Amino acid sequence: MDDPARNAELALLLEVAGTPKPGNVDRRRDLDDLRFEHFLAGAVGAREGLDLAADGAAIGPAFERAIEGMAAHGENSQFGALLLLVPLVRAAREDLSQPVVESVVEGTTVADAAAFYRAFEHVDVFVGDPPADMEPLDVRRGADAVPALEERGLTLRGVMDRSVPGDDVAREWVRGFDRSFAAAERLADADGPPTDRAAAVFLSLLAERPDTLVAKRHGEAVAAEVTDRAAALADRDALETEPGAVEAFAEELVDRGVNPGTTADLTAAGLFIALEHGAVGI
Amino acid sequence: MDDPARNAELALLLEVAGTPKPGNVDRRRDLDDLRFEHFLAGAVGAREGLDLAADGAAIGPAFERAIEGMAAHGENSQFGALLLLVPLVRAAREDLSQPVVESVVEGTTVADAAAFYRAFEHVDVFVGDPPADMEPLDVRRGADAVPALEERGLTLRGVMDRSVPGDDVAREWVRGFDRSFAAAERLADADGPPTDRAAAVFLSLLAERPDTLVAKRHGEAVAAEVTDRAAALADRDALETEPGAVEAFAEELVDRGVNPGTTADLTAAGLFIALEHGAVGI
Repeated sequence: MDDPARNAELALLLEVAGTPKPGNVDRRRDLDDLRFEHFLAGAVGAREGLDLAADGAAIGPAFERAIEGMAAHGENSQFGALLLLVPLVRAAREDLSQPVVESVVEGTTVADAAAFYRAFEHVDVFVGDPPADMEPLDVRRGADAVPALEERGLTLRGVMDRSVPGDDVAREWVRGFDRSFAAAERLADADGPPTDRAAAVFLSLLAERPDTLVAKRHGEAVAAEVTDRAAALADRDALETEPGAVEAFAEELVDRGVNPGTTADLTAAGLFIALEHGAVGI
Repeated sequence: MDDPARNAELALLLEVAGTPKPGNVDRRRDLDDLRFEHFLAGAVGAREGLDLAADGAAIGPAFERAIEGMAAHGENSQFGALLLLVPLVRAAREDLSQPVVESVVEGTTVADAAAFYRAFEHVDVFVGDPPADMEPLDVRRGADAVPALEERGLTLRGVMDRSVPGDDVAREWVRGFDRSFAAAERLADADGPPTDRAAAVFLSLLAERPDTLVAKRHGEAVAAEVTDRAAALADRDALETEPGAVEAFAEELVDRGVNPGTTADLTAAGLFIALEHGAVGI
């Protein structure tokens, strides 16, 4: 009965349900401008684009459709997660392994890059200013950037390559989805229902590398501080002595408006891989 | 961008997210044997059956497919809700009004009834023993009951007619989905985000008629008591003086294992109608 598009949508829902996920929307917490129901509607709306990827459509158009559906109610809830999930779903048609997903992203074209740029016209994504020589390729230009893409012959894989460092979703594209697959293994090894596992693995990912969305919005120092705090909490002994410490950290980050969204994207990707591999049951 | 299948899936998700919904799984509460993630997986899994209904398939086969997908992870999370949603989605192709949904259910056939019986083979649904003369039509017989259906020429609308009284989902089928449409109006008039509205309207529905799943499992007296308690809480003045009273009632019913599932089914149906009519936004 399982098909990759269904598992990808379920991964988005399990990710947002996982609690506590410090700084992020979860089953127990909303942000001022982004609520739990935006994620429910985003996951439901993304399904048609995920179906396209599962049916073998090109990555760029499938992603654009997913974003258009996700954003039908106006909010950007899962842009980065879908940028990971679409190639993973496409790979799952054949075999959900790192070599296959690498070949999927290697096979992207300039047309895929153009569709990726068009996706930015459907939704407001937080991005910083590009360097001056990259201004023609600023994603905020949307479809207006397509001639520059074509002139430079830039594929979607090439666009992702230029977005590293500073964007750990793009980094997955150029490093074989390393952390997504590692997250899936940790999800398989964790205890409890899938939402508890999602929360634990989110914390372990946050402890491992500064969240690039936090770095863009609040600076490197805040991102480093959040990671250090997560690392202290992810230590099993610390959790046992202070069971409410992760909850308190979650509340504090929400109050400060610090939202480790990239780490949530990686968690969703890991959940999808774990569901596909039958490593996490419902 | 909206299509009825997508809104039906979203209605299932908003229903389970609504909190507090006394006795039921919600954003803050799980039952021992039925958890939040079962409802997430159930909604995602039902999508293909809902798509069939939106594409004009017959009610019985669309329902059977929805139940098969809902139950892919083994739990019965949304059987009754889907029995309401499938004809509503089918009606929404034309016009989501009471006369149109009545004509949809009037148009059901013996083949639809047979598919409904087959749906019971995919999932464990709580039902009581039928009267002796109805034993050949016991839903627990699944496909074995189909010859008896055919012999009696019983349509799915006819099966529902025989299930009233004692089943308020079936009652909707024979009374023009009265309470579902009333719930949609109340959802439109309520305040706050859709999940808060869902919780308030759930309480108002519970206050209005004893929940038939509670009556089947725990007897009429318990069902009546729960409705009386809900009626006292649904009174606006009572809520203002005791803001935590609904939460306390929710905890108490979960502890007692009293789960007003039929009222949740009606809430989901109301959410779908309200979403389709644009009366509740995300």
